[in-house]
Amino acid sequence: MSDRTTIGVGMVGHAFMGRVHSQAWRNVSAFFDLPLAPRMAVLAGRSKERTSAAAAQMGWSDVETDWRELVARDDVQIVDICTPGDSHAEIAIAALAAGKHVICEKPLANTVAEAEAMVRAAAGAPGRNMVAFNYRRVPAIALARRYVEQGRLGQIRHVRAQYLQDWIVDPEFPLVWRLRKDKAGSGALGDIGAHIIDTTQFVTGQNVVGVSALTETFIKERPLEEGAADTGRVTVDDAALFIGRLSGGALASFEATRFATGRKNALRIEINGSGGSLAFDFEAMNELWVSEGGGGFTRILVTEPDHPYVGAWWPPGHGLGYEHTFTHEIKDFLEAVARGTDPAPSFADGLRVQRVLAAVEHSAADSSRYTVVEDS
Amino acid sequence: MSDRTTIGVGMVGHAFMGRVHSQAWRNVSAFFDLPLAPRMAVLAGRSKERTSAAAAQMGWSDVETDWRELVARDDVQIVDICTPGDSHAEIAIAALAAGKHVICEKPLANTVAEAEAMVRAAAGAPGRNMVAFNYRRVPAIALARRYVEQGRLGQIRHVRAQYLQDWIVDPEFPLVWRLRKDKAGSGALGDIGAHIIDTTQFVTGQNVVGVSALTETFIKERPLEEGAADTGRVTVDDAALFIGRLSGGALASFEATRFATGRKNALRIEINGSGGSLAFDFEAMNELWVSEGGGGFTRILVTEPDHPYVGAWWPPGHGLGYEHTFTHEIKDFLEAVARGTDPAPSFADGLRVQRVLAAVEHSAADSSRYTVVEDS
Amino acid sequence: MSDRTTIGVGMVGHAFMGRVHSQAWRNVSAFFDLPLAPRMAVLAGRSKERTSAAAAQMGWSDVETDWRELVARDDVQIVDICTPGDSHAEIAIAALAAGKHVICEKPLANTVAEAEAMVRAAAGAPGRNMVAFNYRRVPAIALARRYVEQGRLGQIRHVRAQYLQDWIVDPEFPLVWRLRKDKAGSGALGDIGAHIIDTTQFVTGQNVVGVSALTETFIKERPLEEGAADTGRVTVDDAALFIGRLSGGALASFEATRFATGRKNALRIEINGSGGSLAFDFEAMNELWVSEGGGGFTRILVTEPDHPYVGAWWPPGHGLGYEHTFTHEIKDFLEAVARGTDPAPSFADGLRVQRVLAAVEHSAADSSRYTVVEDS
Amino acid sequence: MSDRTTIGVGMVGHAFMGRVHSQAWRNVSAFFDLPLAPRMAVLAGRSKERTSAAAAQMGWSDVETDWRELVARDDVQIVDICTPGDSHAEIAIAALAAGKHVICEKPLANTVAEAEAMVRAAAGAPGRNMVAFNYRRVPAIALARRYVEQGRLGQIRHVRAQYLQDWIVDPEFPLVWRLRKDKAGSGALGDIGAHIIDTTQFVTGQNVVGVSALTETFIKERPLEEGAADTGRVTVDDAALFIGRLSGGALASFEATRFATGRKNALRIEINGSGGSLAFDFEAMNELWVSEGGGGFTRILVTEPDHPYVGAWWPPGHGLGYEHTFTHEIKDFLEAVARGTDPAPSFADGLRVQRVLAAVEHSAADSSRYTVVEDS
Repeated sequence: MSDRTTIGVGMVGHAFMGRVHSQAWRNVSAFFDLPLAPRMAVLAGRSKERTSAAAAQMGWSDVETDWRELVARDDVQIVDICTPGDSHAEIAIAALAAGKHVICEKPLANTVAEAEAMVRAAAGAPGRNMVAFNYRRVPAIALARRYVEQGRLGQIRHVRAQYLQDWIVDPEFPLVWRLRKDKAGSGALGDIGAHIIDTTQFVTGQNVVGVSALTETFIKERPLEEGAADTGRVTVDDAALFIGRLSGGALASFEATRFATGRKNALRIEINGSGGSLAFDFEAMNELWVSEGGGGFTRILVTEPDHPYVGAWWPPGHGLGYEHTFTHEIKDFLEAVARGTDPAPSFADGLRVQRVLAAVEHSAADSSRYTVVEDS
Repeated sequence: MSDRTTIGVGMVGHAFMGRVHSQAWRNVSAFFDLPLAPRMAVLAGRSKERTSAAAAQMGWSDVETDWRELVARDDVQIVDICTPGDSHAEIAIAALAAGKHVICEKPLANTVAEAEAMVRAAAGAPGRNMVAFNYRRVPAIALARRYVEQGRLGQIRHVRAQYLQDWIVDPEFPLVWRLRKDKAGSGALGDIGAHIIDTTQFVTGQNVVGVSALTETFIKERPLEEGAADTGRVTVDDAALFIGRLSGGALASFEATRFATGRKNALRIEINGSGGSLAFDFEAMNELWVSEGGGGFTRILVTEPDHPYVGAWWPPGHGLGYEHTFTHEIKDFLEAVARGTDPAPSFADGLRVQRVLAAVEHSAADSSRYTVVEDS
Repeated sequence: MSDRTTIGVGMVGHAFMGRVHSQAWRNVSAFFDLPLAPRMAVLAGRSKERTSAAAAQMGWSDVETDWRELVARDDVQIVDICTPGDSHAEIAIAALAAGKHVICEKPLANTVAEAEAMVRAAAGAPGRNMVAFNYRRVPAIALARRYVEQGRLGQIRHVRAQYLQDWIVDPEFPLVWRLRKDKAGSGALGDIGAHIIDTTQFVTGQNVVGVSALTETFIKERPLEEGAADTGRVTVDDAALFIGRLSGGALASFEATRFATGRKNALRIEINGSGGSLAFDFEAMNELWVSEGGGGFTRILVTEPDHPYVGAWWPPGHGLGYEHTFTHEIKDFLEAVARGTDPAPSFADGLRVQRVLAAVEHSAADSSRYTVVEDS
Repeated sequence: MSDRTTIGVGMVGHAFMGRVHSQAWRNVSAFFDLPLAPRMAVLAGRSKERTSAAAAQMGWSDVETDWRELVARDDVQIVDICTPGDSHAEIAIAALAAGKHVICEKPLANTVAEAEAMVRAAAGAPGRNMVAFNYRRVPAIALARRYVEQGRLGQIRHVRAQYLQDWIVDPEFPLVWRLRKDKAGSGALGDIGAHIIDTTQFVTGQNVVGVSALTETFIKERPLEEGAADTGRVTVDDAALFIGRLSGGALASFEATRFATGRKNALRIEINGSGGSLAFDFEAMNELWVSEGGGGFTRILVTEPDHPYVGAWWPPGHGLGYEHTFTHEIKDFLEAVARGTDPAPSFADGLRVQRVLAAVEHSAADSSRYTVVEDS
């Protein structure tokens, strides 16, 4: 490892996403032969105390309480943005302007305008950019993409994509930032709907060209904090349903909800083509179900050495977990940075998803009328 | 059994539906204690030869080649209509006018106008009327209805209903009557979409109040017959997707397609409520999956004596098949006739489904705009 | 159909097995083109009243209260034995002596000696003989056999066969005839263990050549009747476990129990060969799981027209139920009778299973020592 | 973290097990609040070059080429033994004699005599000892144990445990060390059979008291190396089947094989009790199936915060992978060391498994005769 070039990483935010990204930075080199050795240089957070504790636990060498300081540091070549959506644009644009490579959590931004500004900033910058749609790096999803690319599904006719969770079914669950439009941009739509849009576009190789949508906020007021008597207004959607067309002629349906009681993290996608079909559910993330030629569905345990990313890990039948999707993402990011090419999905891909989200909101506000996705 | 009143049955049509209905008429008395003993009096079909062969095989005592003759017979008190949709209204109205009880295959008719005429005819007639949405009588579906009625799901938030088949994926599959609008009214929409609309309304106890829809005909020309060089235009939809709202406030998505490669008869419904969820797939028809209070899904093998209809059959774990749904339907029909009450679903229920189908077609033709279902 | 020869059937016994056999006799001609048309001539049972009621319900034309009268009737060419095992030999031998064809429920007899006598009687008789191992006629099981015959599994290395039920877990469940050695011969072993022995031998085409066994009676005393204070001794096994070798060199394990809480009728078999594997569970009877070449397991929905027996029934995806296995059995029996060949499984096959049962009991009584199956 | 006591770790062996253990040592502190902070001090392996490369990749600070040097180092307080079974006893006894804590891969040794020596050495030593049956730390397995402890299954009647792999089905697969008795002690029996014995004893809280067994070597000669023409004799079992009794009266069946084509790492266990049942398959490691009171089986996604070990990781529905079982094992080991108590499973537990393995071999060599496990 000593002959590899070291590259310094600074991460902003240390909540859920920060913990998973840290796990990826800490372990990626132990499993993948990479041209660049990431060094976990600095973690930024608002509270000195909490950030220091997080850094110690997760293995970051130093801390900052202002992300601008982090961006300015010489020992940081990569900026990893793990904050809520309302700060993505500002941090990313500053980091790109400072010549850094940037990896940014999804959705890329809270509005199309912000996302466009980020893409513009990226266009003129020396650093590389990536939006962290980690589910592309589930081996089963990457294998699904491979099957479609190989033509094993023939012409794609149908996609049904769902992302089902249930963590806010209880009306006493408080008004966290993910339920506030000013912080999160939207609700289930941007948080998890964005993932199924990206996954659909990635696996099929086709864009969503138009949508017809319904959204709903089932619980309109919630306690400001857990157990609080005071309540505040939920300003985002609880659920978003939309149907649409893909650039290759397929019909697609999408559903993102946090009210699917009993479904914990069911990112599901089923694709039917003229020659075969695929089905996936993240709750069984090591399995891909494939039908070829109309026959029964085969449960492929995606743990074989020739499956995407899997060769680096364990023998067949020894499954991977959620965090590995981030390790794979970081691996691909580092390779792209070393190669000097754009990682996928780039900010431009993130903007594409953002435009679909905007079309969904537009359609939902206009009697579900079919709305063409901008620039498609 | 000798003290039961015998009631004569005349059936029109002896293709797929005729075969299944015959199986139900022949066996219903062996498993259910019924107040009326059906007698398989007469079968009507256009060809004397083919109808006679079918009658001999399936156990009908006599044949007619004109359904009007069947309707006029004194030994027929029940008319069972198993023809394509374009003749439903005429036969049913004539049978009702002749004082017969009528059970009619679904969809009730090819248009709302026809269905309305049938409901009007039924209103003034002495005979009872039923539309044969047989999937209501899958024990698992009936059990699902029971759970909702008992409040075990709480307030229903989501329904996702699909009916997926793949029998016309091959572009060489010929232009059968089900692909012609003049005979079938519509394609996947009326044939199988009607089932998931009825199942949704039955299980939730709520009506579909509005929809936003997309339809598509993937293969626009097909051989007139198997292997024929001449082709004709497919005049119905190959697939229909729609999202909508239920009268109780739930969001629902529907998909009916014959292009889901590898899915043979996947009538699926998943329902999420504030207190629990249900999932069903007809390809595993003896199973109902239930989550209560957000816990894991329990696979209930719907073969216990206290499950709907099951007590009449075999011990636990000895599953039923497709045809039993019709036996249950006939059982309920005969009981209603004997009681002098309306069986469910009645023609009025069939009209309700017809109006949803019409709203789907209207929305699909009007940029997917949200369309309120008439009379809802 | 009028030119088919009619053949008269007399059935002895009208409990569970009698009901299922009746369903098969009543319907087989409606689905299969048979050279012989069965006529449900006469039903025998001990109580005139109960037998008459059963005959009326199930479609038998006449009744007898002494099976000897039934055997003697001229209008009976086939005798169907649906009684407990202690009367099989006597009835079957008498029927064969009277020149009748005989189909007999399983296990063939309560002892090897009885089974041998039945085989001897059959050898010199003009009538055909069959033992009713109905699970061979599950389409998925028959398809499994086809795959093995075609060599798609290569050399078979492993069989794991289980028959799991739970209907006597409750210690208050009474001492029914199936729990008494004098009536039933043995417990789970002969009742359901016999099925997995036959299924294993049928699907693999190999015999069980030796076994090592453990048996257990968990609940040793039970109420004589439901709710009775008086108890009697359970004289059969509650569960039987055995491992053994097949004639082709495979290792096999078997488990038959009525104490598998939550398993209702789980007849399961999994087979591993050098080239592929199979798995089946009767609780999902329309599915066969197949792995070829070490790849993932494919869920084959055994409802395609080219699957065994299925072409006679419904379109793909419209599953069959438990009773259909008997319809298929009767169909094969009638065809064999018409052809003048022995149906499979014959009494000789039933004797083969009986000898395995005897070896199991012998091994269990002799410190589980490996016991060679007689004549193997 | 600075106020935690650091404890130095030395690991012997860096193949498959070494890689997984390293992953656990490197990450355990990031997820669990531990009283001891492990320092990855030194890795021992025979080749300086390969060991150095492995150490660099996996994060070990130093290397040794003789395990005796590692054991002698002052900066090593814990010795982690990841070598084949033939060296376990020697290394462990030396490490214990040097006052180190020892964690040793399974099976504990290649013979009962070696395992006894290890237990004796442990008895008089200041260091703690653990045998690395990692599957106990699958959250679903630990949850199964909790359910049994809580009495939710009632009295246990049946266990069926299988460990199915297929990696040596190909007769051209070479004669690796795991297929040589001198290195591995036994074949499938000790490698994977040991796991299902330990898992059974752990989950049920009962010991295996006697067994009746069959073993087989299907492929008796193999190439000495991949592609080699020269072959050598396989001196271990390819598969082991055994049935037995548990100390609480249950019947159990076990099967360990590397010839289950299509099964990759199917460690399965199903347990039936008077009050409920459990089922688990490692190929779906985040799921536990539970039936209570004879009802259907519930698929519990073992990713809730109150499930064993899970609270330290991700939100519900975000599954864990194979390697996490080792992280949990190391966590429990470090806590026991800090507390000064014996971790479970200890060497004594490992000896108990070793005695079952010996009884299996004894029975298989003695006509499968039921063999009582020593000291039980």
